[in-house]
Amino acid sequence: MPASNDARPAVILLSGGLDSATCLAIAQADGFAPHAISFRYGQRHLHELECARRLGERMKVVSHRIIDINLAQFGGSALTDAGIAVPKHDTTAQMEAGIPVTYVPARNTVFLSLALAMAETLGSRDIFIGVNALDYSGYPDCRPEFIESFEKTANLATKIGVEQPGAIRIHAPLLKWTKAEIIAKGISLGVDYSATNSCYDPESDGSACMRCDACLLRLKGFAENGLTDPAIAKN
Amino acid sequence: MPASNDARPAVILLSGGLDSATCLAIAQADGFAPHAISFRYGQRHLHELECARRLGERMKVVSHRIIDINLAQFGGSALTDAGIAVPKHDTTAQMEAGIPVTYVPARNTVFLSLALAMAETLGSRDIFIGVNALDYSGYPDCRPEFIESFEKTANLATKIGVEQPGAIRIHAPLLKWTKAEIIAKGISLGVDYSATNSCYDPESDGSACMRCDACLLRLKGFAENGLTDPAIAKN
Repeated sequence: MPASNDARPAVILLSGGLDSATCLAIAQADGFAPHAISFRYGQRHLHELECARRLGERMKVVSHRIIDINLAQFGGSALTDAGIAVPKHDTTAQMEAGIPVTYVPARNTVFLSLALAMAETLGSRDIFIGVNALDYSGYPDCRPEFIESFEKTANLATKIGVEQPGAIRIHAPLLKWTKAEIIAKGISLGVDYSATNSCYDPESDGSACMRCDACLLRLKGFAENGLTDPAIAKN
Repeated sequence: MPASNDARPAVILLSGGLDSATCLAIAQADGFAPHAISFRYGQRHLHELECARRLGERMKVVSHRIIDINLAQFGGSALTDAGIAVPKHDTTAQMEAGIPVTYVPARNTVFLSLALAMAETLGSRDIFIGVNALDYSGYPDCRPEFIESFEKTANLATKIGVEQPGAIRIHAPLLKWTKAEIIAKGISLGVDYSATNSCYDPESDGSACMRCDACLLRLKGFAENGLTDPAIAKN
């Protein structure tokens, strides 16, 4: 839903995947005027940015900024280094325990820092991020303790945080939900999941691989809602 | 001094100014193998990057990476927006109280996040930053409480921090020193300050303006050591 004129501005990290689309819908339902931020960071799944752009348009964000920050130059992740294979499985039960090779070092710290710079210059105190620590890939920077700590740091780092301690809030509404709960919430808010793409390793035409962790987790989430993933139906 | 073969790698934020050059010398004296990181962030004083490059070469860093991250796109600072004048004064006593317009929103959070990404992929646990909260411009992200909080966040954000809690250390050796003490330390370690440039608003040939906060603070620091700033002597 479009924001009303007196809505408070919020910065929403929008990847083009299912979680961030749901997070955007929640921010809108909470009455915030959403300003989206996305990152061209050297990801192999660059297709997600096209999804992010379309989602931003359809969901009528107030503004959408795509930031160039090359994390591939540091290497160390299957998501930014074509030389490291993205793990593929048949079911979520086969997903590796621990932190997988798709982990991108310090990614959410970098993304939240840039969202913080955007928020402070917009006069916004609210940042939304669609991280989830239940049906997820085990990334350390998706956990509640990370989000809480980043929020404290953000309030110490900035002019607005010094002038009004605690003013900056990092909202992570999906943090403790299952993927099925996230999808149910999004559907209740009218999110069009056919426009999202969560795949870590899509085909050249952008279609999802169906076997990476991100694909398996969303397939399971739709199945648990008795639904077919509309992004698959497209393939 | 060049690092020995068994020196532990450290990431050093190197701006090209006096503080970061001293910080690099301290990291070397402490036995770390220094990997420098600098930022082309849309600063009006781009000349500092040339100083950083020369300093890195002269001080024999193991590697030096210059990262492009456009903070000017967010606006809101005299250092990244030519439309906002850099304040000029005759003495440090005239410097404004509070956070001045040269504050760049979330800058050190962004820089430390990227240094963290570099450190983790290098297998380093040590990041050095030359922030100072005594003879400084009043920036919130130069204070001890910010550095401590970022260190906690960094340990929660990363694979190495999860595997070995507290492994990542943010070193800020200059934090509580006066500018005069920083300079005295640097001189004792052989830092060539003629290669540094701290000016927020240099002339087109790179020479320092002598009247911005950064220039005034370093002039005072050299004077208190009974010395002339060698960067001025060059002008």
